[in-house]
Amino acid sequence: MIRSHDAGTLRASHAGTTVTLAGWVARRRDHGGVIFVDLRDASGIVQVVFREDDAHSLRNEFCIKVVGEVTARPAGNENPELPTGEIEVVAAELTVLSEAAPLPIPVDDNVDAGDDIRLRYRYLDLRRGGPAGAIRLRSRANQIAREVLHARNFLEIETPTLTRSTPEGARDFLVPVRLQPGTWYALPQSPQLFKQLLMVAGMERYYQIARCYRDEDFRADRQPEFTQLDIEMSFVTQDDVIELGETLVQALWKELAGHEITTPIPRLTWHDAMSRYGSDKPDLRYGVELTDLSEYLSSTAFRVFAAAIDAGGYVGAVVMPGGASQTRRELDGWQDWAKARGARGLAYVVLDAETGEPRGPVAKNLSEAHLGGLADAVGAKPGDAVFFAASTNRREAQELLGAARVEIANRANLVDRDAWAFCWVVDAPMFEPTDDGWTAVHHPFTSPTDEWMATFDQKPGDALAYAYDIVCNGNEIGGGSIRIHRGDVQRRVFDLLGITPDEAEEKFGFLLEAFKFGPPPHGGIAFGWDRVTMLLAGAESIREVIAFPKTRGGFDPLTGAPTPITAQQRLEAGVDAKPKPSGPASGSASGAATGTAGVAAPVAPA
Amino acid sequence: MIRSHDAGTLRASHAGTTVTLAGWVARRRDHGGVIFVDLRDASGIVQVVFREDDAHSLRNEFCIKVVGEVTARPAGNENPELPTGEIEVVAAELTVLSEAAPLPIPVDDNVDAGDDIRLRYRYLDLRRGGPAGAIRLRSRANQIAREVLHARNFLEIETPTLTRSTPEGARDFLVPVRLQPGTWYALPQSPQLFKQLLMVAGMERYYQIARCYRDEDFRADRQPEFTQLDIEMSFVTQDDVIELGETLVQALWKELAGHEITTPIPRLTWHDAMSRYGSDKPDLRYGVELTDLSEYLSSTAFRVFAAAIDAGGYVGAVVMPGGASQTRRELDGWQDWAKARGARGLAYVVLDAETGEPRGPVAKNLSEAHLGGLADAVGAKPGDAVFFAASTNRREAQELLGAARVEIANRANLVDRDAWAFCWVVDAPMFEPTDDGWTAVHHPFTSPTDEWMATFDQKPGDALAYAYDIVCNGNEIGGGSIRIHRGDVQRRVFDLLGITPDEAEEKFGFLLEAFKFGPPPHGGIAFGWDRVTMLLAGAESIREVIAFPKTRGGFDPLTGAPTPITAQQRLEAGVDAKPKPSGPASGSASGAATGTAGVAAPVAPA
Repeated sequence: MIRSHDAGTLRASHAGTTVTLAGWVARRRDHGGVIFVDLRDASGIVQVVFREDDAHSLRNEFCIKVVGEVTARPAGNENPELPTGEIEVVAAELTVLSEAAPLPIPVDDNVDAGDDIRLRYRYLDLRRGGPAGAIRLRSRANQIAREVLHARNFLEIETPTLTRSTPEGARDFLVPVRLQPGTWYALPQSPQLFKQLLMVAGMERYYQIARCYRDEDFRADRQPEFTQLDIEMSFVTQDDVIELGETLVQALWKELAGHEITTPIPRLTWHDAMSRYGSDKPDLRYGVELTDLSEYLSSTAFRVFAAAIDAGGYVGAVVMPGGASQTRRELDGWQDWAKARGARGLAYVVLDAETGEPRGPVAKNLSEAHLGGLADAVGAKPGDAVFFAASTNRREAQELLGAARVEIANRANLVDRDAWAFCWVVDAPMFEPTDDGWTAVHHPFTSPTDEWMATFDQKPGDALAYAYDIVCNGNEIGGGSIRIHRGDVQRRVFDLLGITPDEAEEKFGFLLEAFKFGPPPHGGIAFGWDRVTMLLAGAESIREVIAFPKTRGGFDPLTGAPTPITAQQRLEAGVDAKPKPSGPASGSASGAATGTAGVAAPVAPA
Repeated sequence: MIRSHDAGTLRASHAGTTVTLAGWVARRRDHGGVIFVDLRDASGIVQVVFREDDAHSLRNEFCIKVVGEVTARPAGNENPELPTGEIEVVAAELTVLSEAAPLPIPVDDNVDAGDDIRLRYRYLDLRRGGPAGAIRLRSRANQIAREVLHARNFLEIETPTLTRSTPEGARDFLVPVRLQPGTWYALPQSPQLFKQLLMVAGMERYYQIARCYRDEDFRADRQPEFTQLDIEMSFVTQDDVIELGETLVQALWKELAGHEITTPIPRLTWHDAMSRYGSDKPDLRYGVELTDLSEYLSSTAFRVFAAAIDAGGYVGAVVMPGGASQTRRELDGWQDWAKARGARGLAYVVLDAETGEPRGPVAKNLSEAHLGGLADAVGAKPGDAVFFAASTNRREAQELLGAARVEIANRANLVDRDAWAFCWVVDAPMFEPTDDGWTAVHHPFTSPTDEWMATFDQKPGDALAYAYDIVCNGNEIGGGSIRIHRGDVQRRVFDLLGITPDEAEEKFGFLLEAFKFGPPPHGGIAFGWDRVTMLLAGAESIREVIAFPKTRGGFDPLTGAPTPITAQQRLEAGVDAKPKPSGPASGSASGAATGTAGVAAPVAPA
């Protein structure tokens, strides 16, 4: 090592020691004949004192080597803010290892630079304490998770990332295959199929901190590549997976957030979460629960509500504590907010702070009796505002109120920013209706609960799944399910989803084939690792916990990726080659020297 | 858990315990009214005894649950081969969790199935002890490496896999970018540039078990995606990286191969390795060193040798102990062997086993004096054969002899299959000549040694680099270098390689830019993780340590990947879109909502 000591580790006990340090000039202060330099390395900062002129040439972020003696600071000059604040290093020798040009962004935690410039100069950005700390935390989070999993005999297994396109849900990123021109790999959206195959293979306990790819339209905080802590287990029930998940978050939050999670973490059914919080990932740091008024208002003459109720829909409300004191402009603002979400508006009643008397547009439309009992029905006090939503589609109305609930908590300052509120959302519906049938709420390999095993395809709208999400402060940080391990059950699910045997064969044939050979009962979970570590780091964006993230549109301001390719690259990669006529899953491609023909298509064995 | 105990953990001390087991039927034997089933799970095998008829329906690889009592086996029936051999489980209850169709390959370690069928049914293949063991070993290898690295404060950091094409060496796999039509990501051949950027960022100690991609023509044992244990450190010298590398292999081999590696591992210079072993990755499990005869034969009249020597080339020899006893056919076989390698043949002399008299085609062409001293000159004994190579290109001739050396060791049974022989090959040349200039032997970021720093571009053919490879039994298992951290030095290397400033800017502009801001001295190493774990597993192919490997041509017999894509996918992915005219590295692509324009091209900062 070029250095003998890490700068940040020097203490009063080192006084008198000659040390060699190497790091960066964090700050330079000239005091007449003496120059003070804050020398920074990965371990921290130490003050170096130069009495020679050569330090005059130093500028911020020069990389230097210093030989000097550790000395107690003169009395009164100690810096209690700094772990090394009792000492300084009196330099005897200075070597400039490399110089730094004028900095495009200052290396200073107190400066807020824009994301694009930060990411373009990420190597300078990461010299700052905050950004570097987030990357360090993530490394430690990996280690903690691995410790928990290895203690339970999980195997870390890598699954392929050049694999078969399975056009489910989001789009695949595609990769042309030069050696089999006209054919393409897909980058995996998750290791789902492979981890299930590993269970069929008898590996029993698998995990991987896995890179995944999803070609989505960019919303805030989405990355084209992302990471999940991916886990699968055989011979387990939902409770086993949940217990493991709790052990993981407990270990992570204890060390990295200094927070003891009490277990068992509360479980909400999906239907309860929707009716109480209007969300399948409720933020439980505050109350502000929804009230279902469909029954209370069943006789109302107010057309908007009556229409919803008569059609078997839903009318509900959420209370904003103190919301009656909002100005007219603020109350109008809620209408804009609702419209921005695609709703027609947000009906409300305010309760007079003195008298409790209900006022506002909706009040005129409700009967005396309904108005009189309203505060009790929704749990409101004088001075509160009550927001309503009504729809023939229960979920739509609940989600509007759920979003209003989050907005209320923010506007009314109800969120304890230091709190951590976890819950599991369980008993999710298996299916949800689409325009022309049903779609899987989780994915088509999710098992119905035992109660619904026989009948899920008779009442698909009611059927429940062994699917579970873990939620932290309103963020879904992980989710999983018990999988279907029986071919006949999988077949019934595909039938219901309108996936024909041919389509299933084309997309998942190899999995269905594997399930013919004694698949074990199995299930798993995947944690959104970017999000988990973002929360632990107290960061506002997953970009903070990714070393080299991309901006919106998938652009990398540092490398300039993506770029056009040359005609030569295009030709070589076989982008424009026509696939051979031998069919979709043929193994007889030109590059396949061995006799793969005949075992290529994922069909039944001989 | 569906089970109460792991099958392989049951011992005599469990006798009397009622257990619930779950696993697979490994074997069934009917003995009149009694059926014995070997039940296998991830922990091992236990014998289950059924006295009821229901076990008759069991076939191999059914997945079952059994409730029963652990019982000592009747005296004389113990199986000392089996850890559970003192007991058996007397079944009281049987549940078939899933059935198995007739097996396309038997789940049996004693059966050798072809690679294609094994990979197509990899989930059955992995139920066998050998293949499963290799995957388990790899998981443990990861853990051991991480333990060593975390103990030394390395950070595990993920680097991007959707990145910029840098057409160096092998071809990149390319990914069309839907949100910026006409542009492409490349999958990285290694995290090289990013790990160097992390050093510029002050992270100081980075590692990653990283997926890498290389679109090569398939040779035996190549995969389009592969894994390396990737390491980079700041403020280090070559010795520091070598010491870390030794600690890693020591820890791995100690636990996983039961072998204590003595350190320091011997170091050979690259030039010594070539002249003594004719290889930059010499197998040191045996001797059979090369002899340089250029001087000894300097006066020869034999045209083939004289031509090489006169042109400043090389004549050398390698001895095959006992090689004189080879038949004429065997000796001719060497000629075919040499021709298959692209040589014209392999000249030889055999020394009579009794008299030591040299015979064979070359003998006729050498002088009495040269023949008389030959045995001493090359260290041969009566009964040996001496193979010669001569070329104006020293390296070419040495490599032919080096290959002959390996072949000799195999044919003459000189390889101790239980031995582990490690060495470092250091002091590699920086450059090697091409038809029209020079190319980097390692990569263009490799630092010259201190001795060559000032002059490497004056005598590029002689210049040495701080580059080091670690070799195990003739396999290069890892390699790295100290990197150039000074822009001026990097510029001189590019100049020598004929990389113009514009090209350098286009390919590595972002790295050169980063090097303007106080880059630290740094270096690293990458281990070919597939190869390391293959050696540890005692496997013959890296496919054995990859859960789902591909066959030649990059074909996956299990999923059928790669496949053609639909016209819709092609359209959506923007495969045929023309890049916007705004230039190669423009950030103004349609999907980039934020103002990246103007910071996109990797040019100098404002």
